[in-house]
Amino acid sequence: MDIEQFRKAGYQAIDRICDYYYSLQNRPVVPQVEPGYLRKHITATSLPEEGEDFQIIADDYQKFILPGLTHWQHPSFFAYFPTACTFEGMLGDLYASSATNPGFNWLASPACTELETIVIDWAADLLGLASEFKNDSGIGGGVFQTTASDSVLVVVAAARSLYLSRHPQAKIEELVIYTTTQTHSVGAKAGIVYGIKVRAIPVNMEDGLALRASALRKAIEEDEAAGLRPFILIASVGTTSSGAIDCIPEIREVVKDHPDLWVHIDAAWAGVALACPETRETMFLDDINAFANSFCTNFHKCYVVFQWGLVNFDCSALWVRNRRHLTDALDITPAYLRTKHGDEGKVIDYRNWHLGLGRRFRSLKVWFVLRSYGAEGFRKYIRECITHNNTFASLIRASNRLQLVTEPSFALTVFRLVPPSRSVPAVSPADSGVDLSAISSSGITSEYDLEALNDLNKDYMSRLAARSDIMLTQTTLNGIYCIRFAVGAARTKDEHVRRAWEVVEEEAEKALEAWNATKA
Amino acid sequence: MDIEQFRKAGYQAIDRICDYYYSLQNRPVVPQVEPGYLRKHITATSLPEEGEDFQIIADDYQKFILPGLTHWQHPSFFAYFPTACTFEGMLGDLYASSATNPGFNWLASPACTELETIVIDWAADLLGLASEFKNDSGIGGGVFQTTASDSVLVVVAAARSLYLSRHPQAKIEELVIYTTTQTHSVGAKAGIVYGIKVRAIPVNMEDGLALRASALRKAIEEDEAAGLRPFILIASVGTTSSGAIDCIPEIREVVKDHPDLWVHIDAAWAGVALACPETRETMFLDDINAFANSFCTNFHKCYVVFQWGLVNFDCSALWVRNRRHLTDALDITPAYLRTKHGDEGKVIDYRNWHLGLGRRFRSLKVWFVLRSYGAEGFRKYIRECITHNNTFASLIRASNRLQLVTEPSFALTVFRLVPPSRSVPAVSPADSGVDLSAISSSGITSEYDLEALNDLNKDYMSRLAARSDIMLTQTTLNGIYCIRFAVGAARTKDEHVRRAWEVVEEEAEKALEAWNATKA
Repeated sequence: MDIEQFRKAGYQAIDRICDYYYSLQNRPVVPQVEPGYLRKHITATSLPEEGEDFQIIADDYQKFILPGLTHWQHPSFFAYFPTACTFEGMLGDLYASSATNPGFNWLASPACTELETIVIDWAADLLGLASEFKNDSGIGGGVFQTTASDSVLVVVAAARSLYLSRHPQAKIEELVIYTTTQTHSVGAKAGIVYGIKVRAIPVNMEDGLALRASALRKAIEEDEAAGLRPFILIASVGTTSSGAIDCIPEIREVVKDHPDLWVHIDAAWAGVALACPETRETMFLDDINAFANSFCTNFHKCYVVFQWGLVNFDCSALWVRNRRHLTDALDITPAYLRTKHGDEGKVIDYRNWHLGLGRRFRSLKVWFVLRSYGAEGFRKYIRECITHNNTFASLIRASNRLQLVTEPSFALTVFRLVPPSRSVPAVSPADSGVDLSAISSSGITSEYDLEALNDLNKDYMSRLAARSDIMLTQTTLNGIYCIRFAVGAARTKDEHVRRAWEVVEEEAEKALEAWNATKA
Repeated sequence: MDIEQFRKAGYQAIDRICDYYYSLQNRPVVPQVEPGYLRKHITATSLPEEGEDFQIIADDYQKFILPGLTHWQHPSFFAYFPTACTFEGMLGDLYASSATNPGFNWLASPACTELETIVIDWAADLLGLASEFKNDSGIGGGVFQTTASDSVLVVVAAARSLYLSRHPQAKIEELVIYTTTQTHSVGAKAGIVYGIKVRAIPVNMEDGLALRASALRKAIEEDEAAGLRPFILIASVGTTSSGAIDCIPEIREVVKDHPDLWVHIDAAWAGVALACPETRETMFLDDINAFANSFCTNFHKCYVVFQWGLVNFDCSALWVRNRRHLTDALDITPAYLRTKHGDEGKVIDYRNWHLGLGRRFRSLKVWFVLRSYGAEGFRKYIRECITHNNTFASLIRASNRLQLVTEPSFALTVFRLVPPSRSVPAVSPADSGVDLSAISSSGITSEYDLEALNDLNKDYMSRLAARSDIMLTQTTLNGIYCIRFAVGAARTKDEHVRRAWEVVEEEAEKALEAWNATKA
């Protein structure tokens, strides 16, 4: 393809992306395909010998790929956490792709390193992070990773290296990563990736599934007595399942007695909400700023509340209080990667701040998006999403059969279906919280036990999953099977939330009918 | 930005990328900026409150970012390994970015998973990999990772997990990763990331820096006698420094006696050359197919020979002989990630084939590029690059002061400057190889010792590095400081290679003058 052919194909790609966004609302959220669908269209089992005209290839994208995509940008996508996709982010990716380079050190492309150091400092300010976390502090610093998983892997390596430097006699087999039973699976995955024990500390519905000091102290005491060495805690500010926020002030107190415990704040989805000052107290920002070793939030994810982050996947922001802890753990510099400026310590070589070597030019799309929205525009989006979620949560509260399982968190609502009965009081919309005593893991009612209700909700979820006009996902909270509603696609409006509510109601009706039929 | 604003900004982006490629040849390869240059242009230390017009942002990209980029696509970029960038790859990235999704399981976007399984099977066929490595075998399989580093980290985790399942009493402290002293730094990095010992087995100039059976057996015997447990060997087919190819047939014999040793073939740059059948014997493909546990090559990297791969960064292809070894090591499936098809085992959930969770839609750009070139077009590119390198190597061979340090490998030539003297015979262009006996680490000549020659070549390299019209990098081979010439940018033509030769000669002249002045 020569330059003029690219111009033609490029214009067409832009036009087709416009068409895609015009048509998005009328497409099914969930693709109507079965496993193996694509093999029926792409029958060649090997690459053809002859090159093909790009127009044929571009048309095949429309015919075969688009119908097999799950549309995460669809206004009725309420599953997982919405993943952001802005036009500004796309253009950032396009420009970055046009001058592709692996940016592993300053010289590999000075603009890549320098823009990253500047933009991630902007992001730190936007979220209200302490100045110690900024690159211009010269001590701490920020770096874009691919995903929050990647960020966790990086800090676990750094924390392990720091711990072993302080305790050279320690064995890897004695180390323990702390999470809670509600921490995102990144915690468990870090354990299997590194071959390090993971202890998931139990949390209670009564505490809103947040980690408390008492449970943390108990775990440390038990482990230390058993000769084990907890060296990092992955604390959540906004869990994936329910948006729970660990008790950071209590953890801060515990760490005073256990200064070897690295505390990583995984605010993968909720973190970007810190742009709105009204969220900061709830998220314990002052405590995070005072003592956390590292902090991560995803700008690509939109997550929950967030169609914001607003930055196209992938783009996870990681800050550390001491950059030396990353480079001490991850810096190896062979001869062919040495540069004059690197040797002189004048520049950041980001390859020593992450696991791999090469890296994409992610800061460009962040720069495009943040500047285009401005701080005010960014906050406005976040607040709109919270409003949408509050609307949905209010409708659940007013229902006599759908019930909040935990308090709504920013833009995430977790609920389940409970047959209206004498012994389950409907929660009034005016009520600020769900009746937690009624949903302990010992069973919700005198009439139906937990297992029966879980079966009902599994059936309910399978009905919701069969719909192509909406997408939700499920989770389990301390044994309670629940449905997650995560709002945040950029194009989600009030009407989509209300339509989602109607679908949720429709399927609840059918699930209850089926349930009653079996009971009859 | 609304859809029509995006159309306008998108057209402009396409036009500006066209302008960039028209002007590329006239730009300096290496940007003329000093550390901190960007801060002088972006003076805001925080994100502005108000959003900005996208035109201003797009113009700032042209004004501030472009001049700070190192142009890896420049026809006179001969550093590191060229990183591929094709228009087809850009368009693939653009479409993928327009429907951004984290593709962590089949349901997250069926097309992403299915296209990956198909396209990477095509790639396996193109390279001549055994059918056991293909997804349609149902046993082995391929997956796109970000980079070759990522691929190494994945297989080390899998190999460790497999080894520990067979030897439950083993301690992580006893494990050893094997590399050679010439293996890419991914080996050492995997060691520090995982906290696992790395043994770099020495290799000799006399063996072309290839790992031989005797050295491998000796290392295993010594380590086992010391209670250590080598569990993986990262064997190179084309090292970064000099393109050395480990003796895979000999390694195959050793592994028969040590079946616990996982052999990973890191063919990050050279692997795509396997598309040309004439390279397969040199790269020991039959042996790789017969016994290697895993194989990696980078489609983004062009590397050396390769402006091919031809796929824009990042895109590393990893194949394993047994997919269970990946999923046994990396599969954790929390409730919120379960799906009907995944539970039924009907689909691949690629999140269990890599370290993180979310992943980009990389197969799309590969599909675009491979189809557009076809197998024949792909091979043609590779052969052109090899031809360019042979041209350069011939010019070095004919020189009376520049000398090959190792045999040219595909599209990589490693050379150094040696003062013409009575005792150093010029290597004739007709000679198939360099006189290895003359460049042992004990010194090349009776007249100058190794250290003096290294000093000369460091000065020579600093002169080359100061040029903005060409980019080369350096390396050290068993103590010998050398210059690397890696050809492969898509736009590199014979004239660029000859121009590079002139520059190399010019600077050699100056370096020798300075050297002679100090000797006078």
